[in-house]
Amino acid sequence: MNFHDLTRQLQRQSESKIVLLVADGLGGLPMKPGDKTELETAITPNLDALAKRGTLGLSTPVLPGITPGSGPGHLGLFGYDPVVYNIGRGVLEALGIDFELGPKDVAIRGNYCSLDEEGKISDRRAGRIGSDVGAKLCKKLDKIEIPGVEVFVRHVKEYRLVIVFRGEGLEGDVHDTDPQRTGVEPLEPTARSEGSAKTVEIAKQFLAQAREILKDDFPANFLTLRGIAKKPDIPTYEEVYGTRSAAIAVYPMYRGLARLVGMDVLDAGQTLDDQCARLEAAWDDYDFFFMHFKYTDSTGEDGNFDAKVKRIEEFDAAIPKITGLNPDVIVVTGDHSTPSKMKSHSWHPVPTMIAADNCRYDACDTFGEATCLTGGLGQFPAKYLMSLALAHAGRLEKYGA
Amino acid sequence: MNFHDLTRQLQRQSESKIVLLVADGLGGLPMKPGDKTELETAITPNLDALAKRGTLGLSTPVLPGITPGSGPGHLGLFGYDPVVYNIGRGVLEALGIDFELGPKDVAIRGNYCSLDEEGKISDRRAGRIGSDVGAKLCKKLDKIEIPGVEVFVRHVKEYRLVIVFRGEGLEGDVHDTDPQRTGVEPLEPTARSEGSAKTVEIAKQFLAQAREILKDDFPANFLTLRGIAKKPDIPTYEEVYGTRSAAIAVYPMYRGLARLVGMDVLDAGQTLDDQCARLEAAWDDYDFFFMHFKYTDSTGEDGNFDAKVKRIEEFDAAIPKITGLNPDVIVVTGDHSTPSKMKSHSWHPVPTMIAADNCRYDACDTFGEATCLTGGLGQFPAKYLMSLALAHAGRLEKYGA
Repeated sequence: MNFHDLTRQLQRQSESKIVLLVADGLGGLPMKPGDKTELETAITPNLDALAKRGTLGLSTPVLPGITPGSGPGHLGLFGYDPVVYNIGRGVLEALGIDFELGPKDVAIRGNYCSLDEEGKISDRRAGRIGSDVGAKLCKKLDKIEIPGVEVFVRHVKEYRLVIVFRGEGLEGDVHDTDPQRTGVEPLEPTARSEGSAKTVEIAKQFLAQAREILKDDFPANFLTLRGIAKKPDIPTYEEVYGTRSAAIAVYPMYRGLARLVGMDVLDAGQTLDDQCARLEAAWDDYDFFFMHFKYTDSTGEDGNFDAKVKRIEEFDAAIPKITGLNPDVIVVTGDHSTPSKMKSHSWHPVPTMIAADNCRYDACDTFGEATCLTGGLGQFPAKYLMSLALAHAGRLEKYGA
Repeated sequence: MNFHDLTRQLQRQSESKIVLLVADGLGGLPMKPGDKTELETAITPNLDALAKRGTLGLSTPVLPGITPGSGPGHLGLFGYDPVVYNIGRGVLEALGIDFELGPKDVAIRGNYCSLDEEGKISDRRAGRIGSDVGAKLCKKLDKIEIPGVEVFVRHVKEYRLVIVFRGEGLEGDVHDTDPQRTGVEPLEPTARSEGSAKTVEIAKQFLAQAREILKDDFPANFLTLRGIAKKPDIPTYEEVYGTRSAAIAVYPMYRGLARLVGMDVLDAGQTLDDQCARLEAAWDDYDFFFMHFKYTDSTGEDGNFDAKVKRIEEFDAAIPKITGLNPDVIVVTGDHSTPSKMKSHSWHPVPTMIAADNCRYDACDTFGEATCLTGGLGQFPAKYLMSLALAHAGRLEKYGA
């Protein structure tokens, strides 16, 4: 019996409400020995108040030493073992723009790029064209026809797009065509395994037509294909946890992840205030809310320690709007660490807390990496956060007599 | 996808260097309540300096409560689940004397023993004969011929030898013939499972010939067979981690273990000084170095608390020679605990630290069992030490988008 067999069997209906607050890339590092991390530096009276009544810990997103992307990071938080459920970037992007992926679909993230006269990439993001330009080009590419498959081209944002091939016998095991650097030609699509030969063939035809269509659209005169993938077969939140669940996330990828596990995706607006207002408006309609805050990650990736501190304080300031709704369980965590010092995601365990009336208190009265290390949840795999949240919400029966 | 599928997929090439320092049997116990362990008693300024800039923890070699032999202990440190990869003692001994084991080989550790007039064992180690005598007897036994297989007999040290049967249809699932006590006859070889019937037959023929050949060589007038085993199918370090890896170990078994996972085995000399000199000489040729120090284990097995303390201090004194080479990551650990109080290996978790620039600091500023318990690595399975080391060395890509 695996983890979800257990939660399926033990589901208990309840009026209780759970809010999962994810500050993306929350965990950090001090810039030098003896200093504090971003979270420890930030002044966070509201998070600290939760820490006083909650139980803290450090969650490991995937496995020790493994740095997760946002997909695996969130799947872990949602209770899906990210080593078992491997989700391609193309799938995430498609889900994030409300594209309904079916079982015959291969989804691809596209990036418009600039080619010089020799056909070499001079800019991997096509001079970061505006969304208006990107959208117009996608309309042109969407007209591409390839015998035997349906082709969908949808704009995401700026230079980013999604391409979907729908047809029989398509697999997603194909290498990216983005060479990850400039001064070289885009790569030809190649299969990682035999079953994807047809997808490679379709991709080649698609790229040949696209090259012709875009040839006069410098700086966006070509595109690269990344994260080519099929949608994995993943059970829904409703099925495995028995919750009516909603996501309130500004960025497409996180909405896509939530949709993948069957959450309703609500209009989140653009700001934390918008998100909190949406949470309040939808309060009676759902049992479980996933709210995502992006900027703790993006500031960390920029290597901007002070900005990350400020974003954490902004996140903290929103907490009273959430606690004011009296959720039975609040979980605060990140999908991974993004230390400003490293300017990237990292493998370091993530500060995590659960606040509920039936918490076993620990000695922690602030929320930070060092206190979490001494917290009552210990160090634990992120994939168990959902069973902990459900338990604190009275939503799991006793296992066995 | 298993752990090594993940590391295979995420390998990143880098100039970074990792040194894994294994002080065998490092973990200990106080001799009485309230006292310190061997490691805590030892004066270790260099290890403590690493602790200040590193992250500490306690590693569990196999599973809680399971006391590992050296084989499983090291396999865990190397990132191979020791419950999955089970390596027979005979295989280790053969690898340790540079015997190249092939897929048709069954390797056996032999011990010369003394039989009395009644054929009962009077000394399980043949009066600890010198290596000169042992070597001569092995030359005699190496002449044994058995139809259908090749037989190799190689001397190891003193009363110890290795026997290899090479042929079709040989399996290694055969009980030891060493009864583990004196005053009784050696046991007959017997199969633990059907597939090993042929090996049992060959072993019986070998022992019959050996009895005749050795009959006038008291105190070494017979031998017992132990650790009968085939080489497991184990992926190499280069394949799973992408590192050029070298072992600097004085004792054969540890060289054998390192060779088993594909490390180059360097001439380690006889002392820690020799080992450090070899490390420096080979510095440019490898990415990963495994350096083994035996005497923390042997003094623990002797029950000599003070001697183990001294050996730990000797180990500490070598640290500056290693840090002087500026490795990107230093890992210090043991393959298991060997508390002097118990005079044996034990199951107690092992003091472990990783020192690197991107460590998340913890409050630990000395290296000992009590500080490791509060360390940032927490308590973790030893098999994840390699992914942690690779992560700190920048040698793993992000998992997923």
